[in-house]
Amino acid sequence: MKKICIGIIGCGTVGQGVVKLLFENARILEAKLGCKLFLKSIADLNTEAAEKLTDGNTYLTDNPYEVTDDPEIDIIVELIGGTDIAQELILRALGNKKNIVTANKKLLALNGAKLFEEALKNNTEIGFEASTGGSMPVIKTMRESLCGNVIKETSGILNGTCNYILSKISKEKITFETALYQAQTNGFAEADPALDINGDDTAHKLAIICSIAYGTKVNFSDIYIEGITGISPQDIENAEEFGYRIKLMAISKNRGDRFEARVHPTMIPYDHVLAKIDGPVNAISIHGDASDEIVLTGKGAGMMPTASSVVSDICDIARNICAGVGKRIPSLSFLPEFLSEKQVVKISEITCKYYIRLTAKNSPGVLSKVSGILGDFKISIQSVHQKAEDDIEGVPIVMTTYKAQESHIEKALEKIGSLDEIIDKPVIIRIEDEF
Amino acid sequence: MKKICIGIIGCGTVGQGVVKLLFENARILEAKLGCKLFLKSIADLNTEAAEKLTDGNTYLTDNPYEVTDDPEIDIIVELIGGTDIAQELILRALGNKKNIVTANKKLLALNGAKLFEEALKNNTEIGFEASTGGSMPVIKTMRESLCGNVIKETSGILNGTCNYILSKISKEKITFETALYQAQTNGFAEADPALDINGDDTAHKLAIICSIAYGTKVNFSDIYIEGITGISPQDIENAEEFGYRIKLMAISKNRGDRFEARVHPTMIPYDHVLAKIDGPVNAISIHGDASDEIVLTGKGAGMMPTASSVVSDICDIARNICAGVGKRIPSLSFLPEFLSEKQVVKISEITCKYYIRLTAKNSPGVLSKVSGILGDFKISIQSVHQKAEDDIEGVPIVMTTYKAQESHIEKALEKIGSLDEIIDKPVIIRIEDEF
Repeated sequence: MKKICIGIIGCGTVGQGVVKLLFENARILEAKLGCKLFLKSIADLNTEAAEKLTDGNTYLTDNPYEVTDDPEIDIIVELIGGTDIAQELILRALGNKKNIVTANKKLLALNGAKLFEEALKNNTEIGFEASTGGSMPVIKTMRESLCGNVIKETSGILNGTCNYILSKISKEKITFETALYQAQTNGFAEADPALDINGDDTAHKLAIICSIAYGTKVNFSDIYIEGITGISPQDIENAEEFGYRIKLMAISKNRGDRFEARVHPTMIPYDHVLAKIDGPVNAISIHGDASDEIVLTGKGAGMMPTASSVVSDICDIARNICAGVGKRIPSLSFLPEFLSEKQVVKISEITCKYYIRLTAKNSPGVLSKVSGILGDFKISIQSVHQKAEDDIEGVPIVMTTYKAQESHIEKALEKIGSLDEIIDKPVIIRIEDEF
Repeated sequence: MKKICIGIIGCGTVGQGVVKLLFENARILEAKLGCKLFLKSIADLNTEAAEKLTDGNTYLTDNPYEVTDDPEIDIIVELIGGTDIAQELILRALGNKKNIVTANKKLLALNGAKLFEEALKNNTEIGFEASTGGSMPVIKTMRESLCGNVIKETSGILNGTCNYILSKISKEKITFETALYQAQTNGFAEADPALDINGDDTAHKLAIICSIAYGTKVNFSDIYIEGITGISPQDIENAEEFGYRIKLMAISKNRGDRFEARVHPTMIPYDHVLAKIDGPVNAISIHGDASDEIVLTGKGAGMMPTASSVVSDICDIARNICAGVGKRIPSLSFLPEFLSEKQVVKISEITCKYYIRLTAKNSPGVLSKVSGILGDFKISIQSVHQKAEDDIEGVPIVMTTYKAQESHIEKALEKIGSLDEIIDKPVIIRIEDEF
């Protein structure tokens, strides 16, 4: 039976999951692949934990170049994360004609184009299913199962920590801070959760999704990103009254020669399946022109679910090696000569429904003034709740609009915010209700 | 650019969808595949509708052998359905070294082993993503994305008609007959819906899923099948009171050297994502030992969603042809020499929770007798509702049990059913609440 040699660089949680899986399910992998996946070496600054999981035949080192430069190794799994060293190691390994499997969403989002070009030049491939959506097969579904489709849009819940926090606030009526603390206590959030809650992690995954969905290079800084720190229990409660749930959504829409790409808290209809995804889970709705809507859900992170995706990429590459073929499927779904450089639609140009929350002084005529300003900007109100409560200062006015252009909303809210009767900055949350 | 020649046999709804897709998305397919998919010929008794969708370069015939025997054709799409002629044509095409793409779940469920053997012998492949779950990538996810996993269990809603009917009864409190009539009126159910509502169609898909999940031949007649005709609005309402929804589920469980495979109405927890899948949609929950739970949903049928899956199989095969490789992935996930002949666990041997509905005469002591009999068979009651209503004969007693063995339930209910106080045959519905 043919032997495929694998090296792992970076053996933390996910890396250890990969080691476990390769050993524990070795027999089933052989029965499916017809070849043996031999874990030849592991590089990590601390290989103690990894060593306990191996059978003694894996070489352990703290020098990653012993992996990148080993002529016997066929597939290198990069799991150190970050951008600088990871990129250097991947480029070196590609130069040595190695195939790469990586979960490094940040590196791919920021500099994927360079890596894919280098892989092409060396006739090797980069598997990155684990970079996006944990165990969910997002990449494979878009590149292969929807191959015959024009992808029209994608809407994803791509960060388990944020989804855990929003679910907690919604169910237990607690504050953002308490929910975040609980997420950290339960191990769902990092000690420094900034990358999660500010939306950056979600945006990294969205960049990867857009590049595959629309066959384009994505300039990461063009993606509009708004995190969940501004979400109050009050907005979540109001959303429910309007028939919505609030989720941190990564939204992309195919607009022909351009595309939308934005990450922000979003109200989605209560009865859509994405609204029902609670806890540290990921989910994505993908619309193909033929397939219609496909939804995938799965654990968004964690040792074994992410390892499952890493191993699926190893298997795909191993099958190609065994069959004696190079890359069968273009990295970004489209062959390089058909990739384009589509622009991201500016957030001010998008059109959607809006939820607006204002706090007004309890004086007559304020609603009339507000609706007058909205009318001036051609924004129609769909519904409005004004509910005075005795124990809080000011009257909350919450409303939803029909579809309007973001630039009009911005201008209208600037004007509304400057009214004497309005206390605090107006809050807006975008509503997406067409799935 | 290399040209791959395709022939379609059977050009009804789905076939026309495939024709449409191949022409309308020809450019995008070329940009992704790097080859041209040329629809060389279509065989159907009536080619009029298909002809309107082609560009005039496709040969139309009422003789399917002109397709099976055309030496230029690489991939044949079989969409006539049924077992006899379809099998004959597929075997002939395989003998002619053609690759096959089919949506024929019944043929695969009943006689897949023979077809796969024949494909192996001829070094060709059979794509059958469209046979199971419409546009959902069930086959690809199990065979490829979960390649490194031992699949522990699968639970699927695999028949859109049944799901439409159950959703309708649940939401509108109408009878089974009315819901079925509406399904037919809205084009979701066939004129003869027997195969859908009796559970056979779901079981065909389950047989395919089990063979891939557990790497085994499946004897179709060993699958326990119970349709939805016995479901009353009363049971659906009671289910909701206990926190469940009723779905026609195709359930499989890996029991090591055996496996469970059963189709029956099932109560599942209200807050599980499968419980929220309404209308003519399919969904499946797949548990891998590493991936944990993955859920897929998508349109379960229809012209374009099914065509999307057919075309994804065409693309996979076309990529192999272009790369000059034969089959990369074993048909049933495991290489033929690793396939086993696992037995299906008899329904009497399964263990789950049960919902039981009895109708009793309004006489004292009946609940005591019933619970005594259940106790004799070591069946513990989890909750019980007894609600007399003035306008109906008899008192409905509904209860749920803790986990019990089906054979014990059968014997206990036989004894309970023979009590003088019990009117009508007891109704049971299995409960699955561990996902």
